[in-house]
Amino acid sequence: MKRLKLRASVAIGCAMLIMAFTGCEENPGKTMDGPPNLVLILVDDLGYGDLASYGHLTVKTPHIDKLAQRGIKYTQYYAPSPLCSPSRAGLLTGRTPYRTGIRSWIPPGSNIHLGKNEITLAHLLKDKGYETAVMGKLHLNGGAERTDQPQAKDMGFDYSFVIPGGWAKNKKIETKPSDGTLRRGKIYPDNYWRNGVPVGETNKFSGQLVADEVTSWLDKREKGNPFFLYVSFSEVHTPISSPEEYLEMYSNYITDFAKKNPYLYHWDWVNQPYRGQGEYYANISFLDAQVGKVISELKARDELDNSIIIFTSDNGPVTREARKPWELNMAGETGGLRGRKDNLFEGGIRVPAIVSYPSEIEPGQISDAPIYGLDWLPTLAELLNFEVPTDREIDGQSIINTMKGLEIDREKPMIWTIDMEGQDDPINEWAIRADDWLLILDRGEQPKFLFNIANDPYQVVNLINDRNDILLPLLEQFLMYRSNIEADSVNVTTL
Amino acid sequence: MKRLKLRASVAIGCAMLIMAFTGCEENPGKTMDGPPNLVLILVDDLGYGDLASYGHLTVKTPHIDKLAQRGIKYTQYYAPSPLCSPSRAGLLTGRTPYRTGIRSWIPPGSNIHLGKNEITLAHLLKDKGYETAVMGKLHLNGGAERTDQPQAKDMGFDYSFVIPGGWAKNKKIETKPSDGTLRRGKIYPDNYWRNGVPVGETNKFSGQLVADEVTSWLDKREKGNPFFLYVSFSEVHTPISSPEEYLEMYSNYITDFAKKNPYLYHWDWVNQPYRGQGEYYANISFLDAQVGKVISELKARDELDNSIIIFTSDNGPVTREARKPWELNMAGETGGLRGRKDNLFEGGIRVPAIVSYPSEIEPGQISDAPIYGLDWLPTLAELLNFEVPTDREIDGQSIINTMKGLEIDREKPMIWTIDMEGQDDPINEWAIRADDWLLILDRGEQPKFLFNIANDPYQVVNLINDRNDILLPLLEQFLMYRSNIEADSVNVTTL
Repeated sequence: MKRLKLRASVAIGCAMLIMAFTGCEENPGKTMDGPPNLVLILVDDLGYGDLASYGHLTVKTPHIDKLAQRGIKYTQYYAPSPLCSPSRAGLLTGRTPYRTGIRSWIPPGSNIHLGKNEITLAHLLKDKGYETAVMGKLHLNGGAERTDQPQAKDMGFDYSFVIPGGWAKNKKIETKPSDGTLRRGKIYPDNYWRNGVPVGETNKFSGQLVADEVTSWLDKREKGNPFFLYVSFSEVHTPISSPEEYLEMYSNYITDFAKKNPYLYHWDWVNQPYRGQGEYYANISFLDAQVGKVISELKARDELDNSIIIFTSDNGPVTREARKPWELNMAGETGGLRGRKDNLFEGGIRVPAIVSYPSEIEPGQISDAPIYGLDWLPTLAELLNFEVPTDREIDGQSIINTMKGLEIDREKPMIWTIDMEGQDDPINEWAIRADDWLLILDRGEQPKFLFNIANDPYQVVNLINDRNDILLPLLEQFLMYRSNIEADSVNVTTL
Repeated sequence: MKRLKLRASVAIGCAMLIMAFTGCEENPGKTMDGPPNLVLILVDDLGYGDLASYGHLTVKTPHIDKLAQRGIKYTQYYAPSPLCSPSRAGLLTGRTPYRTGIRSWIPPGSNIHLGKNEITLAHLLKDKGYETAVMGKLHLNGGAERTDQPQAKDMGFDYSFVIPGGWAKNKKIETKPSDGTLRRGKIYPDNYWRNGVPVGETNKFSGQLVADEVTSWLDKREKGNPFFLYVSFSEVHTPISSPEEYLEMYSNYITDFAKKNPYLYHWDWVNQPYRGQGEYYANISFLDAQVGKVISELKARDELDNSIIIFTSDNGPVTREARKPWELNMAGETGGLRGRKDNLFEGGIRVPAIVSYPSEIEPGQISDAPIYGLDWLPTLAELLNFEVPTDREIDGQSIINTMKGLEIDREKPMIWTIDMEGQDDPINEWAIRADDWLLILDRGEQPKFLFNIANDPYQVVNLINDRNDILLPLLEQFLMYRSNIEADSVNVTTL
């Protein structure tokens, strides 16, 4: 196993770090006391353009922006999938989702789950002596009550506080009043499970519950061991529900109807007036504040500078192009990129990604290297000194060089899949990117779009009929890669 | 021919009109001195949600909003087509575009043109003694130089100042610098033609040229006759280009890159950073000011209160869902409606429509009657007392009752068509609405979407597989209507 090459120069590097590196400034040597913690912050449906640090002109996200300033911001990071469950499966395993048994989002009660033979980041770090915990949305099986499916514990997490399914729910609000009136109420979720036991009614928004759980877990855990904390906020997935103070921040972007009808249950928006973008903006800023809380809790315990913090999103946003009742009044921004959640254009898969690790990663870096969510596992293997599983295909690669301001050569093409049934818009099923060329194929594996991402990041010049010299070899790479995925044997007997 | 029923009660009505009715207030009886003028203001690619009076939360459009306050605002008005040329053909003829020979947008140099046998609003009003003029975008043939195709004069306009093709152009700016630098410059159009003669270089933005031409035409014309003025602004079609003062209004919505690179030619946006929404917003406010100028010129000549002013758009907007290089950085709003220009969802065809006619239409009305652009001709026939052609199918109907606060029964379903080649997104070809049910069919005439617009205005609940009781009779109506259109003989020998 390769050892992190950065580390050799860290003693010199530390002295050279600018004063913003509190690890050096306040407590020299602290960051090398022991193995660093890993804090993986995943947010839900946050678009490439949804953060101020990624160009949003209206929304305020000071805490996440500060994290970017403290580390490296990626401008060509791709989620493993344009959809939640497969993206999460890829993120934790380093394997393209189709290998893991998860081809689409998992509805409640489904028999689909993360393959029992999958090895996750949590397994690998637990084996290295890390305490592991997941807070927030898991969405890797058909329900927390399923004893026949892997649960958080089986996925390597010692501690869990999770929404097993797709989003924050509250049964009382969902229940249709018998008098036919509209459903209303702040979504204080009642679908969290703590270590396999339903939590029941709560009295806070989902993001607050997650941040609070992080706090109490940090308080209760035994000090000494490093930890892996997977903080998986359900924001900014629908239904969006935020404290009033955040709604007030964006009152200029909320219609009079929405002001007069706050906290109207999202299923009841279908035949009601347009609500504006402000509720979505508010949910982003609310999320940002919860991220800030997690960071400040780490700092308060002197764990911040010895933590690798990764911040990213599971897939592109729901833009104003709603396709389903629950998607109305969303206002996700892709920063001009084409498409949205659920499809394989850039807007569906290119999302924010930030890594902060003050003792090793120089702050204020911006990298335009094409990387993706399957790279975290092999990258962290180098950073945290664990072995990448060798008995199975890992689709990502280490991107450590990007953190040193160096270029990387991609060892394999990047590949994405989505098989979303029940959509009334056409959904292409496969995408593959090699160098700057991105090919999208439909469900019949017919090539539909060919883009040069360097020349045409917005994907408005489809070269599918013009560049056979590119298309044919890329198609061949795709077919080989696809065969390899379909033949993956890891979960054959367990799905 | 039916005479306008409103008119019988106008003497009483006038006394009852609120003081905002300047016709009564300042000059009682003036509005009945002679036949009213018709001012048809058409704007290009303006979306349902692009005006403050239609719910835009950011853009300021005081002049158009005031027009709405002075008259009636329609909330379920549909353009004849989701695309420019066919929409314009329908607007002037009252006939669904496929009958007129125009199935898609007309590229420069095309052999496609408005059928030579079509009878336009201009023909009909000219026959009634109206002076007729068109200023702005015509887009009903393959070019102003084509002697084998009908030009504005042949379409019934005595006077014309037109962009024959699709948008405001300037050759100097379009020309690629030999040094490879980006193209820059305010788009002062060089593709206007006045009465069949090229105008050449100009020194103003398109909207200013149009408003100025209206002014000078009003100055020069012989007083006495009523007039039909078709004011067809090329805003807010790409390329958008607006005076600095409007850009400054929306500086919060313009990226630093765009501020440092103002007036960058839109074809050169493809591999450049995102520009934000502010340039689009600025173009709307600039357009609004030009509409204001036209209205104030009418008022200055004491023609305002004796003018029927119709304000509408040719099709839905280019939203942030760009599909072509020239569509980047557009920010059209549909007010939450699904889709955009070029497609048959509500966002592609439902647009603003306002009618102001102080002596006959009570101000401040809002109508949710489903009406469309093919209704103007038969409605104006009633209002202005001319005969609807009886030798051909007219697809619209009079909507005068809507202006009296009454309901209307639609005599026929509403039908839309679009056949846009060269798009890389799927384009459905037909849509038909009867009562609240809207059916969309693909190019193979296969039913794809069925929506109940009353229950589901945002079109997020596709009932195509659930409501055969609705689908089958609607499909039968469609097939009959389509046969009727395909068999239309008006232009058979002339296309």
